[in-house]
Amino acid sequence: MPITLNTSDADFDAGFTRMLSMKREDSADVNTAVAAIIDDVRARGDQALCELTARFDRLELTPEALRFTPDEIEAEIARVSDEDRAALTMAAERIRAYHARQMPEDASWTDPEGATLGWRWTPVSAAGLYVPGGLASYPSSVLMNAIPARVAGVERLVICVPTPDGVVNPLVLLAAKLAGVEEIYRIGGAQAIAALAHGTRTIAPVDKITGPGNAYVAAAKRQVFGKVGIDMIAGPSEVLIIAEGAQNPDWIALDLLAQAEHDADAQSILITTDPTLAHAVAGAVDRILPTLPRAEIAGASWRDYGTLIIARDLDEAARLSNRIAPEHLELVVDDPEALALKCVHAGAIFLGAHTPEAVGDYVSGPNHVLPTARSARFSSGLSVLDFLKRTTIARLTPGALAAIGPAAVRLAGAEGLQAHGASVQARLELLNERSGG
Amino acid sequence: MPITLNTSDADFDAGFTRMLSMKREDSADVNTAVAAIIDDVRARGDQALCELTARFDRLELTPEALRFTPDEIEAEIARVSDEDRAALTMAAERIRAYHARQMPEDASWTDPEGATLGWRWTPVSAAGLYVPGGLASYPSSVLMNAIPARVAGVERLVICVPTPDGVVNPLVLLAAKLAGVEEIYRIGGAQAIAALAHGTRTIAPVDKITGPGNAYVAAAKRQVFGKVGIDMIAGPSEVLIIAEGAQNPDWIALDLLAQAEHDADAQSILITTDPTLAHAVAGAVDRILPTLPRAEIAGASWRDYGTLIIARDLDEAARLSNRIAPEHLELVVDDPEALALKCVHAGAIFLGAHTPEAVGDYVSGPNHVLPTARSARFSSGLSVLDFLKRTTIARLTPGALAAIGPAAVRLAGAEGLQAHGASVQARLELLNERSGG
Repeated sequence: MPITLNTSDADFDAGFTRMLSMKREDSADVNTAVAAIIDDVRARGDQALCELTARFDRLELTPEALRFTPDEIEAEIARVSDEDRAALTMAAERIRAYHARQMPEDASWTDPEGATLGWRWTPVSAAGLYVPGGLASYPSSVLMNAIPARVAGVERLVICVPTPDGVVNPLVLLAAKLAGVEEIYRIGGAQAIAALAHGTRTIAPVDKITGPGNAYVAAAKRQVFGKVGIDMIAGPSEVLIIAEGAQNPDWIALDLLAQAEHDADAQSILITTDPTLAHAVAGAVDRILPTLPRAEIAGASWRDYGTLIIARDLDEAARLSNRIAPEHLELVVDDPEALALKCVHAGAIFLGAHTPEAVGDYVSGPNHVLPTARSARFSSGLSVLDFLKRTTIARLTPGALAAIGPAAVRLAGAEGLQAHGASVQARLELLNERSGG
Repeated sequence: MPITLNTSDADFDAGFTRMLSMKREDSADVNTAVAAIIDDVRARGDQALCELTARFDRLELTPEALRFTPDEIEAEIARVSDEDRAALTMAAERIRAYHARQMPEDASWTDPEGATLGWRWTPVSAAGLYVPGGLASYPSSVLMNAIPARVAGVERLVICVPTPDGVVNPLVLLAAKLAGVEEIYRIGGAQAIAALAHGTRTIAPVDKITGPGNAYVAAAKRQVFGKVGIDMIAGPSEVLIIAEGAQNPDWIALDLLAQAEHDADAQSILITTDPTLAHAVAGAVDRILPTLPRAEIAGASWRDYGTLIIARDLDEAARLSNRIAPEHLELVVDDPEALALKCVHAGAIFLGAHTPEAVGDYVSGPNHVLPTARSARFSSGLSVLDFLKRTTIARLTPGALAAIGPAAVRLAGAEGLQAHGASVQARLELLNERSGG
């Protein structure tokens, strides 16, 4: 039974707040184990990587075999069906086209005082992309992480993907190829993150690490943060659907279940102005759920976190959406553009009945790496900007320094930083001498 | 004696690597103490804030007195001299003008398949700015944090500033006023960060926390990260100056000392192609240092971390600069623009002899909150973007779904996510029925 709330009930706010603050993730404390693995990789390098891979992935490697050879990659890719290849190629092209538009522009201007100011964007030199192994080894995630990096102009892109018992998903290697990544290592877990951050004899260190992973990978990313940049630490996925009465309940039920099948900790929420639709959707979920291969996972998610909310009107729905700050927001209403303007905290918005969230996971173009757990209040999905950094630039003419320098001297004095003031004053004095002589 | 290196020496690379990896910060482990303070504020709210402020700042407050009243603010501001006020006003205006140009644009376009795609930027709703008390209570930092937030459109801006023994820096309150911040609390330390992140009866929680602070503040920001967004955790400041022979050694010495006077852990580095200049600068530092009020701090920094490097040419200097990835980079050479193009990892670049780094701390316009400790390899200074987040938007027509949906179904199948595929397939089937009928 999903959580069912009605904004007209007296105890709605208590129930809504309780739903919002539900803890959906068991964060086992793996920090000590992860710290030991990182220390081991730093101390013993490739040797540690091989031993840890033998232990965790049941795969015996020598340092020379850590990296996939071009022949190995091609042999795996050859196993991909033409249909899968075509679908992945279309996804890659659409993701590339979307992200190409995100490239920010440099700027430079000269102000009336004579100061030339601006900024310049440059890519990180090297980025490492973590790809989980086994069941959650998603080729779509390879595209979503690697293509923005490529668009940003990152020179060296590295993938680490564990291959338990030596098994790799050929589509992951094809996705890497489509994104132009050739440096791929068959390692995973905290040891892969340690290798990317600190480097070994075989694997040169990178500057930024992105990509999803289990609790060990997430803890390792947190621990190496500062030494390298990392993307967000993603929590369980979530969708919020806002729907009016006349919509197809089966479609909405499927969209809720698509979210729920990711993970027993995922959350699917429907807010509707129509109790009849809520009832119909709940019925459709119950009918469809047993037919799904991942019925157990989706069922647990729906049972524990699934939520149906009856709202008075769409304005109220938008206000609740802003309190939820969902990762994915579907607006299945007559005028989704108007409603979208009122929904200001969301990772991604999907407008109208023909934009199911699942197309966004694969082929619509925007990134599917999005802020979870209410963090859309203050953060954004993965983008080209995550692989760029901005350098600010200033050049003063002597005249500009004469115009604004005295204020700097004054403020340096007020802050008790005499050398700051003196560094400006010394220049101003020479300028004064010159203009006086 | 500063570290002195010459790229022509056989052991240069070892020395340079050793200099790069010097640990400049004693990070005392305050995590346990900070966690207890955060728990206390979450459990007891305002009462905990008052008790902790009495203990750490020797200031007895009631919950009603946590916030500065408008009269208290005006009374403090009235003490500011006209000269200081004019200087701070100029700084605020120039910082605002620079950051106004950073506002990114929304985008929306329709592709040939009929998918309307784009993104929209929105501000965080509420941001909290931490301002250190006592000696490091810098009005310039208030401007550098608050003005980008204002430019971004953040509706609610809050400042927390500890006032040990009840003393506040009037310039900090004036800077807050110039930036349009009226909600100011006289609390500091981990307790202030806890209040901003979790809220109390008196202080509503915020979505993002920025601003510098001591080890307790930094640890608290790390611990509340995820619940709220935070800016970078800044390390000790650093400057790299690249200079050719004909430059004024006194100016360079003053710029090195301006960095050194911040903190005994700060680092000042000169790379020059001219050994004579290096010698003259070292002499000027020795001559000027004893005249500084902060000679002890600047002297310790210069002694422990100051570095002089003789390079063969400017290309080599640029390569070394990219390995250092300095927070501040001064290019005191004949053609600084050309050299700047080769320096791709730096927080801020100052071009030419009349752009001392100190003008950038106060009045040139770009932000002075910049990536330290080599993190300019992968991160940027504070900007308007830190107070915005991006929501991606997609709307498919039925025709667009018919064109790209089958690829999503295919990939969902390959990833074993059947409900994902079914959510698209159900729509495609209805479209097919319609077009068939």
